[in-house]
Amino acid sequence: MTQLAETLNQYQQRVDKNLNKYINITHPISPLLNEAMGYGALLGGKRVRPFLVYAVGDMLGCSLQSLDPLAAAVECIHAYSLIHDDLPAMDDDDLRRGQMTCHKKFDEATAILAGDALQTLAFDIISMPNKAITAQAQLKMVNFLAKAAGDHGMCAGQALDLVAENQSVNLVTLQKIHQAKTGALIKVAIQLAAMTKSDLHEDHFQLLNTFADAIGLAFQVQDDILDIIGDTQTLGKPQGSDLALHKSTYPALLGLEEAQNKAQALCHEAQLALSQLPYNTELLSKFAQYIIARDR
Amino acid sequence: MTQLAETLNQYQQRVDKNLNKYINITHPISPLLNEAMGYGALLGGKRVRPFLVYAVGDMLGCSLQSLDPLAAAVECIHAYSLIHDDLPAMDDDDLRRGQMTCHKKFDEATAILAGDALQTLAFDIISMPNKAITAQAQLKMVNFLAKAAGDHGMCAGQALDLVAENQSVNLVTLQKIHQAKTGALIKVAIQLAAMTKSDLHEDHFQLLNTFADAIGLAFQVQDDILDIIGDTQTLGKPQGSDLALHKSTYPALLGLEEAQNKAQALCHEAQLALSQLPYNTELLSKFAQYIIARDR
Repeated sequence: MTQLAETLNQYQQRVDKNLNKYINITHPISPLLNEAMGYGALLGGKRVRPFLVYAVGDMLGCSLQSLDPLAAAVECIHAYSLIHDDLPAMDDDDLRRGQMTCHKKFDEATAILAGDALQTLAFDIISMPNKAITAQAQLKMVNFLAKAAGDHGMCAGQALDLVAENQSVNLVTLQKIHQAKTGALIKVAIQLAAMTKSDLHEDHFQLLNTFADAIGLAFQVQDDILDIIGDTQTLGKPQGSDLALHKSTYPALLGLEEAQNKAQALCHEAQLALSQLPYNTELLSKFAQYIIARDR
Repeated sequence: MTQLAETLNQYQQRVDKNLNKYINITHPISPLLNEAMGYGALLGGKRVRPFLVYAVGDMLGCSLQSLDPLAAAVECIHAYSLIHDDLPAMDDDDLRRGQMTCHKKFDEATAILAGDALQTLAFDIISMPNKAITAQAQLKMVNFLAKAAGDHGMCAGQALDLVAENQSVNLVTLQKIHQAKTGALIKVAIQLAAMTKSDLHEDHFQLLNTFADAIGLAFQVQDDILDIIGDTQTLGKPQGSDLALHKSTYPALLGLEEAQNKAQALCHEAQLALSQLPYNTELLSKFAQYIIARDR
């Protein structure tokens, strides 16, 4: 196994253990709700956002323990968004990560509530007492996470994406959708980790932002590419589902080859930002390459 | 107009003005999303929770300005829960406060997202820089709000409530449902206001908790009563909708007269707690009476 694969695996296990602790509480008020929350949050997934929290924080010298709540909180937001995106009124997906989606396994009402409660849990976790971070920094993190997840970020992106279905949008709009829908949460994962280091140089914070923007978009371009060249079994969701929904995608707008070039250019941009940081950026650099090389 | 009615009106306008500011931002990423958020949050409503934030905080000597974000945040959580509760997969209501529900006015997907984004907005607002409150206290408020709204509170209550439909539950279970579904958010409104006063005596905090628990439950008992004796036009939603869903209610379990006695007893309990506080509790006392006397 490569160093990246090993570390991805290690961080995935770490965040899953924490999520499990937060969700599978003793004596839940509604056992069914917590079961559905756990189903939606704990069933597989690459854990890209927690990985970024841990990898960036570790690179900056922060302890993994201080990063634990941040990684779990960001993943809760991601997990809730997937549960709601899969609902019949939204993307109407039956499969996610090769398993039944939450509303298929349970029912729509329970899936809506599980998503709602996972979002709340994110803010519960990130506001719990954390000795490694000042209250002021932690409060700022809460605010950054909220800005990334709500009408300034992810929710707005999903709303734009729904409107864009069955109509062709141009590249500028497509990029705006993706920056909000997936980019904002990837970026905030990196920002939260960076904010854990109280004396981080402002220039380095900005370089990490540049890195975040580039890999966030690269991630989405590659997702679009995989929807065309991937196969259903590897993806864990039906290949061609974007096409079926007549969604505008990078390959649809640019052609497959230009979309692949775009992903390469974004990966290069991410690595250029990393190269200017006085830290050991090897793992993050490999991750940037992995994003555009992955097949799922 | 009575003092209570005037104050209710004043605080309602105050929180609406703030909600409007937070929701109707310039250059939203998705104008449709913010429109739906505003529709769900700003169309009428008694603003009971913001009233409690302002009334309790004002009684304790806190400035209304320092309470503004708390009142708005709690109302955002309440508004989001109403939007999601009305969805076809949940209570499937067409009317709310005499108007079309959010998914009727827009569509289901937009309503789900508007609810999601209103929840996020609550945590955005409550974590914004607030000079009147220390970062530590503010962080604790975020955590209290999350605990009240998620799987430790409101979401769990709604999940229990859905399961309880079409089956009879006993009084203990009914109370557990209501404590989580509506009681937790009413309680946290009062707690957030109390936490704004940094030197509040612990005994007084506990008395306010007792007051909160009593009026929270009284509010629900009266809601159940109104579903039987109210009329559709005054209620703004179909009278008898609980009966139609075969929901267990206080009148169904206790009979109408005993349910009314229960509401009276809770009101008395609330006023007993108030009487032990060394503050001017007149307004809160009148509010406790109003809760069980209201016809909508």
